[in-house]
Amino acid sequence: MELDRIVADIAAEMAAMTERGRVADYIPPLAAVPADRFGMAVIMADGTTHLAGDAEELFSIQSISKVFGLTLALGAVGDALWQRVGREPSGSAFNSIVQLESEHGIPRNPFINAGAIVIADVLLSGYAPREAIGNILRFVRSLASDDSISIDRAVADAELETGFRNFALANYMRAFGNLHHPVEMVLGVYFHQCAIAMNCRQLALAGRYLMNDGRVPSAGFCVVTPQRARRINALMMSCGHYDNSGDFAFRTGLPGKSGVGGGILAVAPGIASIAVWSPGLNQQGNSQLGSLALERLAQRTGWSVFEPRKG
Amino acid sequence: MELDRIVADIAAEMAAMTERGRVADYIPPLAAVPADRFGMAVIMADGTTHLAGDAEELFSIQSISKVFGLTLALGAVGDALWQRVGREPSGSAFNSIVQLESEHGIPRNPFINAGAIVIADVLLSGYAPREAIGNILRFVRSLASDDSISIDRAVADAELETGFRNFALANYMRAFGNLHHPVEMVLGVYFHQCAIAMNCRQLALAGRYLMNDGRVPSAGFCVVTPQRARRINALMMSCGHYDNSGDFAFRTGLPGKSGVGGGILAVAPGIASIAVWSPGLNQQGNSQLGSLALERLAQRTGWSVFEPRKG
Amino acid sequence: MELDRIVADIAAEMAAMTERGRVADYIPPLAAVPADRFGMAVIMADGTTHLAGDAEELFSIQSISKVFGLTLALGAVGDALWQRVGREPSGSAFNSIVQLESEHGIPRNPFINAGAIVIADVLLSGYAPREAIGNILRFVRSLASDDSISIDRAVADAELETGFRNFALANYMRAFGNLHHPVEMVLGVYFHQCAIAMNCRQLALAGRYLMNDGRVPSAGFCVVTPQRARRINALMMSCGHYDNSGDFAFRTGLPGKSGVGGGILAVAPGIASIAVWSPGLNQQGNSQLGSLALERLAQRTGWSVFEPRKG
Amino acid sequence: MELDRIVADIAAEMAAMTERGRVADYIPPLAAVPADRFGMAVIMADGTTHLAGDAEELFSIQSISKVFGLTLALGAVGDALWQRVGREPSGSAFNSIVQLESEHGIPRNPFINAGAIVIADVLLSGYAPREAIGNILRFVRSLASDDSISIDRAVADAELETGFRNFALANYMRAFGNLHHPVEMVLGVYFHQCAIAMNCRQLALAGRYLMNDGRVPSAGFCVVTPQRARRINALMMSCGHYDNSGDFAFRTGLPGKSGVGGGILAVAPGIASIAVWSPGLNQQGNSQLGSLALERLAQRTGWSVFEPRKG
Repeated sequence: MELDRIVADIAAEMAAMTERGRVADYIPPLAAVPADRFGMAVIMADGTTHLAGDAEELFSIQSISKVFGLTLALGAVGDALWQRVGREPSGSAFNSIVQLESEHGIPRNPFINAGAIVIADVLLSGYAPREAIGNILRFVRSLASDDSISIDRAVADAELETGFRNFALANYMRAFGNLHHPVEMVLGVYFHQCAIAMNCRQLALAGRYLMNDGRVPSAGFCVVTPQRARRINALMMSCGHYDNSGDFAFRTGLPGKSGVGGGILAVAPGIASIAVWSPGLNQQGNSQLGSLALERLAQRTGWSVFEPRKG
Repeated sequence: MELDRIVADIAAEMAAMTERGRVADYIPPLAAVPADRFGMAVIMADGTTHLAGDAEELFSIQSISKVFGLTLALGAVGDALWQRVGREPSGSAFNSIVQLESEHGIPRNPFINAGAIVIADVLLSGYAPREAIGNILRFVRSLASDDSISIDRAVADAELETGFRNFALANYMRAFGNLHHPVEMVLGVYFHQCAIAMNCRQLALAGRYLMNDGRVPSAGFCVVTPQRARRINALMMSCGHYDNSGDFAFRTGLPGKSGVGGGILAVAPGIASIAVWSPGLNQQGNSQLGSLALERLAQRTGWSVFEPRKG
Repeated sequence: MELDRIVADIAAEMAAMTERGRVADYIPPLAAVPADRFGMAVIMADGTTHLAGDAEELFSIQSISKVFGLTLALGAVGDALWQRVGREPSGSAFNSIVQLESEHGIPRNPFINAGAIVIADVLLSGYAPREAIGNILRFVRSLASDDSISIDRAVADAELETGFRNFALANYMRAFGNLHHPVEMVLGVYFHQCAIAMNCRQLALAGRYLMNDGRVPSAGFCVVTPQRARRINALMMSCGHYDNSGDFAFRTGLPGKSGVGGGILAVAPGIASIAVWSPGLNQQGNSQLGSLALERLAQRTGWSVFEPRKG
Repeated sequence: MELDRIVADIAAEMAAMTERGRVADYIPPLAAVPADRFGMAVIMADGTTHLAGDAEELFSIQSISKVFGLTLALGAVGDALWQRVGREPSGSAFNSIVQLESEHGIPRNPFINAGAIVIADVLLSGYAPREAIGNILRFVRSLASDDSISIDRAVADAELETGFRNFALANYMRAFGNLHHPVEMVLGVYFHQCAIAMNCRQLALAGRYLMNDGRVPSAGFCVVTPQRARRINALMMSCGHYDNSGDFAFRTGLPGKSGVGGGILAVAPGIASIAVWSPGLNQQGNSQLGSLALERLAQRTGWSVFEPRKG
């Protein structure tokens, strides 16, 4: 089949690349990931699956988890969430603290660290940290229809030990009253959520509801309303790649969310849920080959949301 | 027809609104525009036209002209343009100068004032100011297939007299070598471009190439390549509404570009080119009713680019 | 004596003031301080002491302690300190975090919170937190020749519970490697140092070394070298009142350091050590009446360092 | 005499220095100044003059002229000036525009470019540009008791041609209504004021009023009130060296104002008016050897204002 060939071609092209970016090295478990990996999984609306490269190898989803956290939090508190988190691209790095000062502790969007920390705080309401973490994990497992997905404790522990900037962000927002639980508890949830380990196939499965107006097709249940699914996609397009979001949209025309582990989840609404993974990062902290692979996929398939649709 | 009714309904709803925002008052010709106006024009891929409200009343397109300027400049210098202008949302107001200092005179994107001023400088290469202005006007006329479109000199003159922040931006970029022509000449082009007067119908006509992979359908000529058309749409979605861009994408799911005159040009790729106009602005300087009308249109038509497509 | 009358007059004038600023209310022990207090103590180079108003009433010295911390840290590590803290006014509020991001975790000066936190980290080297706190307290007692000076534990505990911005600052600098000890330990030292309670008389006594080229006159021992004493004075003048430092220098012509408890320590080199206290703060967080009293004192005595000296 | 030897020694030490900083090269007339120059002039309260090195060689006083402009403007409009210019160190470079945006066009102090441009606007009130420039020049001549002082037209013209950042600053403030005259006129005054050429001896003469409570001794006339003279000194200490002001105060303990031409005017109140000149600049744009020479002079003479005075 045509798409099988496209996916295989891209994987082969990526395998031949020498400029692979720089693997994240701020915690040992991430630094130990071999730079030569590349995986890709494309799941079509009808459930057909196309895999290539290291699509079955587990990696740390890191900030991609922010999409799932946002989805859960919207389910929990609805649009009241937007009183505590903005919806605008920040124009700054993922861990910048500058904007919080002038904007009184309200993070610009749910996909920068500060925003995702507020969301972790929301997910703690009524739950102990362990329960909140369990809720997120169960949610991701149900999205992917795969109960084997789990959290890499070594990653979570390492984050907790070295995550001083996140502690700074959390304390700063607490100072403005925009965290309601103790900082240690909120970051406990946040770091565990980020430490979920998945492979490309599982991640693409977990993203199916985003291409499908909020419904997980095979499972037959609705995760969010159609409107909310589209809006999460809009946020992924505006804010999913930190201060590289505009460029990612320019190149791929797809909503996507990257993680510092080298993964990217992208969505072609109505068509496909796509996961790519390659651990080398570009200067803005997004997977170098992952971005490139998605750019090529969009070019060859015409899946850009800006491609004219047939009426 | 169904769409006729949707457009008429929205126009009727907007006419009943009491919260209409605030008309721009920094120059007398804009301040004089009556706040109670609302117009809408939808032109479908097949050329069918749907008008409502004050769709035939001329207004100052202002920053919407930045889309046409960008298109012309890409034709003139191609991707070399991106060495002088970025592609990221700024997270700041349309006329902010802060970012330019740390980023050495390179504006974040072509749709904030600083970026559009660089583009005016590009359009001056090889031309006298009067010729450059003529080129832009002719281009817009050809896009809209309407030679009656013209520049409102009173607006251009008023801008020139009071546009101190734009003079500041231009001089600042000149200091970094990112303007190649005298500031007065560049701003002359910029202010005349912004002072083009159009009505909703003309504006929707001029935007047809953006819904149609770069080709003006009836006219049968190509303005830009399909890839470039999609990328301009991506930029409109990321950066088209200043520090309200994320929210606009969230609400409408459509690429769009607003102007301080109260107009918005929006695109549903493959489906429609849409122009709305209502002079009252929200706090970020975008048409209050125009944004709302587009949000409702997208909801009722399902034209959001994040709506699942049928394969 | 003339000076007695000046001091008494100023105290009387301050007692009559109705615009007294706003008492700090971020922790209950500070919020409970009555706004109607004003105290003043002037200790001359020859040891003569002039008191007025509530000069014997204890208050929380808060950021004034940063002067003593800096003095101790310079004794401990010398000019190596300046690799970790700058010497420039920040132009920002006392607790701003913005500057730290672009300047990689190096605070602008030792008198903003971030700088004093680095100094607390320096004072922890080789000591347990309890010992470091003891060292500071003993140092202040010896400067004031008064062993009754102690720490207000209620204040220290309240700071620890609500000092989220300081936790943010500390974690942020830790992320850049500019704190060497655990954040909790460093802030424990910092909060206890700030919670030292003194009255105006004790504070003016403790400041004697600063008017006297580093030597405590009666005690006959040298705290710092003459050069260092002058430099601490220079820093107090440049940076002692946060984003009000320029104005304080402009009005009084005296090096001074304020605290959020309403105290100010000021120095007329060679002439006097001066402490004032009034808990109401101006918008920049400095004692409103304390500043005014010092302005009047400098006017009536000619103690401004910019007053021409007799050769 | 002792001081003669100190001044001669310092000049000899400076002549031997190899690290001389970088001569300003943004305009040809400044770039052409030989880097090996060093001059020094010290004028005592009794009129005694001590010269060394190239003390009779003319240089462009540049920003040192801001002290004279401020003095004139205070004479013209008094403390009303402070509604249009602040009194706080900016913590930023001399030509930064960032602070102006959040502070609505009010520059932080009269010694950054933006502040001096506002002052040039004040000096234009009631005068044509040529007259205003004449007023400034006459004022400086009278301060120095030397009618030969003049403006280097080549410098003024070169500034006008390349001063885009100053045009940006001026237009930006005009946008906020904080300039009342056309930008070209204001900058004409500003650039001519900066282009005054003086030698160290003349500059030290012109600074006598600042060491003498506002009175020019030999001339016997009062330039400003004693209070205002002290306040100008305070501003020079807080803000006279841009983002190096704190360090300059720390090292020398003297109020001073530097210029990009390599000059520094410093004041030891009651004791001496001092001018140094060496065209090589440090990273913050202040004379490298000039700063060092003043540091050594203050050390050897004990003229720091923080030196204890004899009662």
